[in-house]
Amino acid sequence: MIDKVIEIGFLFDFYGKLLTNKQQDIIILYYYEDLSLGEIADKVNISRQGVYDHLQRAEISLRDYERKLGLIARYKKLKIELESLGRFIKSRDDIDKKIKRELETRFEEISKLL
Amino acid sequence: MIDKVIEIGFLFDFYGKLLTNKQQDIIILYYYEDLSLGEIADKVNISRQGVYDHLQRAEISLRDYERKLGLIARYKKLKIELESLGRFIKSRDDIDKKIKRELETRFEEISKLL
Repeated sequence: MIDKVIEIGFLFDFYGKLLTNKQQDIIILYYYEDLSLGEIADKVNISRQGVYDHLQRAEISLRDYERKLGLIARYKKLKIELESLGRFIKSRDDIDKKIKRELETRFEEISKLL
Repeated sequence: MIDKVIEIGFLFDFYGKLLTNKQQDIIILYYYEDLSLGEIADKVNISRQGVYDHLQRAEISLRDYERKLGLIARYKKLKIELESLGRFIKSRDDIDKKIKRELETRFEEISKLL
């Protein structure tokens, strides 16, 4: 389950805004606020089966966006490369301290954009 | 017109796969192969007005994806930061040549991911 929560978290973070409002609400209640299908059903006034169907469709849409656009795969590769470059800079004692600090500050800025 | 071609090019590059096949075909014929609406109409066997409508709807969808997800804005910022970092490294004569080469090689790899 934890793998799925992480997967849906990533997908929702990237593509969530393309879902309908109801789908977004249900994903948040289920995956982020950890409510059960029954609790969500009571909250949004549809049947338990209805909640389940919304969730299923939302998850299929999210996976479909990633299959078509592959932005998460691209993002993960980029993150790995940047982290590796960051570690490389950190590990070199023969880079002048001031330059190192400057590089590290710029790296932090770049990481914030990811 | 050239601004619009660049804008649609960016949008299509990021989100094109979310359009219908017909919308994708028409965008390619119009923006990449530079065919007129009339020529596209003959080619895909719909009216000139039909081609125009498909184009309009496709462009609205593409802009809507960017409005909701903002991935191009994020990408552009990231690119600017990385280029600036690349120039900073290049400009410093007090970084050891071997380290500089290593940093530049890693930068090229990262740029390929953008």
